[in-house]
Amino acid sequence: MNQFEEKELKQEMEQVELYLTEYLRDPGYGGAVSRVLRDMEQSRGKRLRPRLLLMASRYGKDFEAARSKLCRLGALVELVHMASLIHDDIVDDAPLRRGLPTAQAKYGKDMAVYAGDLLLSRIVQSLFRDGFARVGQMVGEAVEAMCVGELGQMECRWNEGATVEQYMRNIYGKTAALCRLACMAGAVESGCSEEMQLQLEQLGINFGYMFQIRDDLLDFVSDAYEEGKLTQADFREGIMTLPVLYAMEDRQTKPEIICLLHAAEEGDFGFEHAARLKTLVTTSGGLARAAADMQMYADRALQAIGNLPDHGVSDVFRDLLRAKCKISAAG
Amino acid sequence: MNQFEEKELKQEMEQVELYLTEYLRDPGYGGAVSRVLRDMEQSRGKRLRPRLLLMASRYGKDFEAARSKLCRLGALVELVHMASLIHDDIVDDAPLRRGLPTAQAKYGKDMAVYAGDLLLSRIVQSLFRDGFARVGQMVGEAVEAMCVGELGQMECRWNEGATVEQYMRNIYGKTAALCRLACMAGAVESGCSEEMQLQLEQLGINFGYMFQIRDDLLDFVSDAYEEGKLTQADFREGIMTLPVLYAMEDRQTKPEIICLLHAAEEGDFGFEHAARLKTLVTTSGGLARAAADMQMYADRALQAIGNLPDHGVSDVFRDLLRAKCKISAAG
Repeated sequence: MNQFEEKELKQEMEQVELYLTEYLRDPGYGGAVSRVLRDMEQSRGKRLRPRLLLMASRYGKDFEAARSKLCRLGALVELVHMASLIHDDIVDDAPLRRGLPTAQAKYGKDMAVYAGDLLLSRIVQSLFRDGFARVGQMVGEAVEAMCVGELGQMECRWNEGATVEQYMRNIYGKTAALCRLACMAGAVESGCSEEMQLQLEQLGINFGYMFQIRDDLLDFVSDAYEEGKLTQADFREGIMTLPVLYAMEDRQTKPEIICLLHAAEEGDFGFEHAARLKTLVTTSGGLARAAADMQMYADRALQAIGNLPDHGVSDVFRDLLRAKCKISAAG
Repeated sequence: MNQFEEKELKQEMEQVELYLTEYLRDPGYGGAVSRVLRDMEQSRGKRLRPRLLLMASRYGKDFEAARSKLCRLGALVELVHMASLIHDDIVDDAPLRRGLPTAQAKYGKDMAVYAGDLLLSRIVQSLFRDGFARVGQMVGEAVEAMCVGELGQMECRWNEGATVEQYMRNIYGKTAALCRLACMAGAVESGCSEEMQLQLEQLGINFGYMFQIRDDLLDFVSDAYEEGKLTQADFREGIMTLPVLYAMEDRQTKPEIICLLHAAEEGDFGFEHAARLKTLVTTSGGLARAAADMQMYADRALQAIGNLPDHGVSDVFRDLLRAKCKISAAG
C-alpha cells in the first residue's frame, strides 16, 4: 500500500463529495423534488468509479493542474452511477439499496423515473457548463451502453437459452462501460498520451468485467452476503449469471436448473431451492469456471497496469484488484 | 398563409425526419433494443417542436448557412419530446400514444425506462459530437425543468388543495420549457440578436402555456376528442387541470368536485360522473376562465411576434396560434 497516494486520494475524494452535494442541491423547488434530492445526497456508496477516475488520472502530465476538474468529473461519473441505480431499482422492484429504502420503494416507481432523469439532466448541464467536450460524448456513449446492457439482460430473463456470450455483452453495459468511462475520463482530462489512454481503457473494461463477475459469484459463495440484497436475487428474478450459465453447459445439470428456474418463475423458490442451486453450481464446476474468468479479467487489468509507466498509484490499483479478487478464493 | 415559407418549412421538416431516422438507427444490437428503436422511428407525431425551432430560426442572419445544423437540432428537440413521452407513459399507465401501443404497454414499464434513457443518451452524444455547446446546456436545463414539472404534478395528484399557481409551475415544465428551448435553440443557432432571442424565448414560453391549457380545455370541450386518450383522463388520474382548478375556486362547486375526485380515486368514475364534472366546470365559469387564460398567453405570443422584425414566417406563426386557439371557441 502506497500511503502517500492513499492520502492524496482521500483528500480528492472529499472534494468529490463536495461536488456531489453541489450537484444534488435543491435551488428552491421544495416538495417532492427536494426530498428526492436530499435522499440522493444522503445515500453513501463506495464511490468506486470516482476513485478509478482519480487513480487513472495520476498517469497524466497535467494531473496537478487539472485536479479540481478531475474531482468534478469524478462526481459526475458517480452521478451517472446513481442515476442508473435509481432506474435499475425500478426494474428490479428493489426495496433497499445500500441499506436504505430505494427511491421507488419510498416514493413509487413514477417518482423514481423522474428522479433518475433529473440526475441525468444535471450531468448534461455540468458537462456543457464546465467544458467537458471530449468526455461529454464518452458519457453519452457509456449511458447508451448501459441501456443496451440492461435491455439485453431483460431479454435474457427466464430464457433457458441465454448464453455466456450474451451475459458478457450485458455486463459490459451494466458495469464495464462505466468503469471504462471513469478510467478514460481520468486519462483524457489529465493529459495522458494516446498509448496510456489505451492501456487505461483496457484497465477500466477488465476491471469492470472482474467486478461484475465477482458480484455474481458472491451471490453464491457467501451465505452471509447481504448488503441489502437477498441471496440468489438474480436467479429469483430470472437472471442467469455466469456461474449458472456455466453450470448449464453441463448436460446433466441443465434440466434440474431449468426446473429451479420454473420454480422461481412461479414464485415458489425457497431455501431448499437456493441450497440445491448452490450445490449444482458448485459440483458442476460452474462456480470454479466463473472464478477463473474473474481471475483472467483481473490479470488483464494487471497487465494494463504493467504496460503503464511505473507510478505510486500502480500499487494502489494492484491492491484494489487483489482485494476484490480475494473473496472468490473462499469459493 | 405564406406559401413560400410553408414550402420551405416542409422541405426542412423532411430533413428533420431523415435525421430522426439516423438518431433512431440500430447499429446492430438486435433483439429488444432493435424493436424499441424501430417502434420509435415509426411513431409519428405532429413534430410541433422542430417546426417551432425552424420557424424561430428564420429571424436569424445566419439562417441559410446554418440550415442543416438547424434541422439536426430540430430532430434533437423532437427526440427530447419522444423520450419524455416514453417516461410519461410509464407514469400514466397509458396504453396508447398517437393511436399506437406505448412502449410500456408493449414491452413493459421496465423496458420503457431504458428506452427513454437510450434516447437521452443519443441526444447527449449528438449535442457533443455536432458541437452544440451553447444549446447543449439549454437542453440540460429544459430536461431538468421537465422533470421538476412532472414531479410537481405528481405531488398535486389527488390533492384537494392544489392551486392554479402550482398548475402553472407544473405546465411550465411539462410543456412550456421545451417550446422555449425549441425557439431559443432556433434563435441562437441562426445568429439572432440578443433582443430577438429574448422575444423568441417569450414566444416559446407563451406558446407552450397556451398549448397546454388548450390541451386541458379540449379534454372537457369536445366529447369526440380522442387522439388515443379517453376524456377527462387527467381527472381520473387525480390531476386537476386549469378548468377544474378555477371551478374549485367557486365555494359552492368545490365540495361536489371533491366528491367526484374521491369517486375517481376509488375507481368509481363513470359517464355520469364525467358529465357532471363537465357541467360543474362549465356553469361555474371554470371553462371560460381557462379559455380566457389560453387567449391571454396566445396574445402574449402574438405580441412577441409583433416585437420581432417583420418576416414572412411571422404570418405562419400567427396562423399557427389562431389555429390552436380556435377549438376553445367552441367551449
